[in-house]
Amino acid sequence: MRGAVLYGPGDVRVEEREDPEIIEPGDAIIRLSATCVCGSDLWPYRGIEPVDGPSPIGHEYVGIVEEVGSEVRNIAPGQFVVGSFFASDNTCPICQAGYQSACIHREPIGAGGAQAEYLRVPLADGTLVATPDLPSHDLIPSFLAASDVLGTGWFGAVAAEAGPAKTVAVVGDGAVGLLAVLAASQLGAERIIAMSRHEPRQKLATEFGATDIVTERGDDGVARIKELTDGLGAHSVIEAVGTQESMLQAIGSTRPGGHVGYVGVAHGVELPGQELFYSHVHLHGGPAPVRRFLPELIDLIRNQQIDPGKVFDLSLPLDQAAEGYRAMDERRAIKTLLRP
Amino acid sequence: MRGAVLYGPGDVRVEEREDPEIIEPGDAIIRLSATCVCGSDLWPYRGIEPVDGPSPIGHEYVGIVEEVGSEVRNIAPGQFVVGSFFASDNTCPICQAGYQSACIHREPIGAGGAQAEYLRVPLADGTLVATPDLPSHDLIPSFLAASDVLGTGWFGAVAAEAGPAKTVAVVGDGAVGLLAVLAASQLGAERIIAMSRHEPRQKLATEFGATDIVTERGDDGVARIKELTDGLGAHSVIEAVGTQESMLQAIGSTRPGGHVGYVGVAHGVELPGQELFYSHVHLHGGPAPVRRFLPELIDLIRNQQIDPGKVFDLSLPLDQAAEGYRAMDERRAIKTLLRP
Repeated sequence: MRGAVLYGPGDVRVEEREDPEIIEPGDAIIRLSATCVCGSDLWPYRGIEPVDGPSPIGHEYVGIVEEVGSEVRNIAPGQFVVGSFFASDNTCPICQAGYQSACIHREPIGAGGAQAEYLRVPLADGTLVATPDLPSHDLIPSFLAASDVLGTGWFGAVAAEAGPAKTVAVVGDGAVGLLAVLAASQLGAERIIAMSRHEPRQKLATEFGATDIVTERGDDGVARIKELTDGLGAHSVIEAVGTQESMLQAIGSTRPGGHVGYVGVAHGVELPGQELFYSHVHLHGGPAPVRRFLPELIDLIRNQQIDPGKVFDLSLPLDQAAEGYRAMDERRAIKTLLRP
Repeated sequence: MRGAVLYGPGDVRVEEREDPEIIEPGDAIIRLSATCVCGSDLWPYRGIEPVDGPSPIGHEYVGIVEEVGSEVRNIAPGQFVVGSFFASDNTCPICQAGYQSACIHREPIGAGGAQAEYLRVPLADGTLVATPDLPSHDLIPSFLAASDVLGTGWFGAVAAEAGPAKTVAVVGDGAVGLLAVLAASQLGAERIIAMSRHEPRQKLATEFGATDIVTERGDDGVARIKELTDGLGAHSVIEAVGTQESMLQAIGSTRPGGHVGYVGVAHGVELPGQELFYSHVHLHGGPAPVRRFLPELIDLIRNQQIDPGKVFDLSLPLDQAAEGYRAMDERRAIKTLLRP
């Protein structure tokens, strides 16, 4: 099959790879309908995370089940399925508490490289959610978004306790930040402040439900959020970047007793304990337990109540993955969909 | 009046000070029935926090209202009152959300120095809670505990979401940690693990409701908590120390999706973002909004359902404050009550 391989910083190649096979009896093999490039793929692409030799890449996927192992019970060949970036059994106490991305048996999907034609998914029964029927072609980008960026933005909004009568601020205007706006809107937030200085992203944020746009960053951004909230700060702030500046911006923008939901993969972050202590915020986040939200998100997409697929502003054949990475790296594209 | 003054590290003196007077129309003057030394007073006493010239010290107090300003409505001379270490209006949106220690009009009580015969309390209507009648002498230590250490331990337990069916671990065996055990027990926790290596404190923890004692610290402490919780970690962990080691011990002892309530005043803490991100814990804490809990705590004490005054294992006349500090510094005493 064809699949993307990261050779080193800035060097993604699509090449012939071995077809994946059932290894464990709980595995499924999926023929991918679509896959995509994630903001978190840019960390190693940019050399900020080390790249250890050529390695398959990608962890977002939807597709048709091709084959299942002997112990798979809930998933059958021919079904259209959505999964997430951690395989999880969905039965352990941690999964049952809604933290499938910390399942005691979790396995990262990324190792297999989902930017490819086929993918092996371990723990298929716990990991994959099948749609009731084969979706129409135009819904596929939205289901693909549910696989990570929508589920991650949603978790950020839930972790930040976005909801009715709340003012929510979103730090980060990548796909996750934009979909956190959509999530906050779906969760009933009264006011949603998107922090962005990029016109096309501001526009999409507004389409997704943002009521205010703030272009300032850092301390100026914090001051602007305070100005918009009677000097108090937002009730809920979603952090979707993962840097020291964005974390401090999120904490500073939150009122005492408010909630920060942080989903940007932390890079070089050291939180000053004293500042955090006196901030009185709630802090929660981490790799999103997307599996928790998939049934609900799939329903919302099938019923066309949300259209998260709008974050894909570039669609390329899988073979042009390198251009998909470049476009995102240079911020020419919000998110690149790849067609295997 | 007589009052304690901190001159420098290790140098507390009780000397003649000016009687406090009504300054603002919302003030009250309290004749203190009892006051005490706080673990947080030891930070400047030990020179870990800088001491800027001789300064009055102490922030825990109960007593009889002596005089009130012209705008005070809810508090009257002759009443027995309990207050907390931040004066708060109890009406601003932050107070109404339960974060009185971050009130937009808050004023620290400590500046006035509560280790004294009299104390001026600003924003008396919002800050003080009167008991329905004058309490018997033997309940005074418990009401005094409510002023800070009980309220702080209680907030830690609430922030950690201690409750039925939960396993709670408590890092720190000072008065706050011990009263966090009591709070977790009152909140209905199923299992309460006190982390302590001091026999008298272990004993008090057990009296307050601890079901298990762990003597290991740091990574060994984390390993022991995991061992006791099927490898998962506690649901709720209360951090009542404020150091880097204790924070990492608390985070490491918490299962993914669990809650850390941290109330130890942070000193030299820098939380590694990546470790926090992958821990999947909820983190909440800060200076406790004791005022939120006072009505409930006062009821529990009046009805003799709890006896938090047990943390005072040393009682001295105010004039012997210096010995009270020494005894706590050398860990000969858990907490020193001072009788003005």
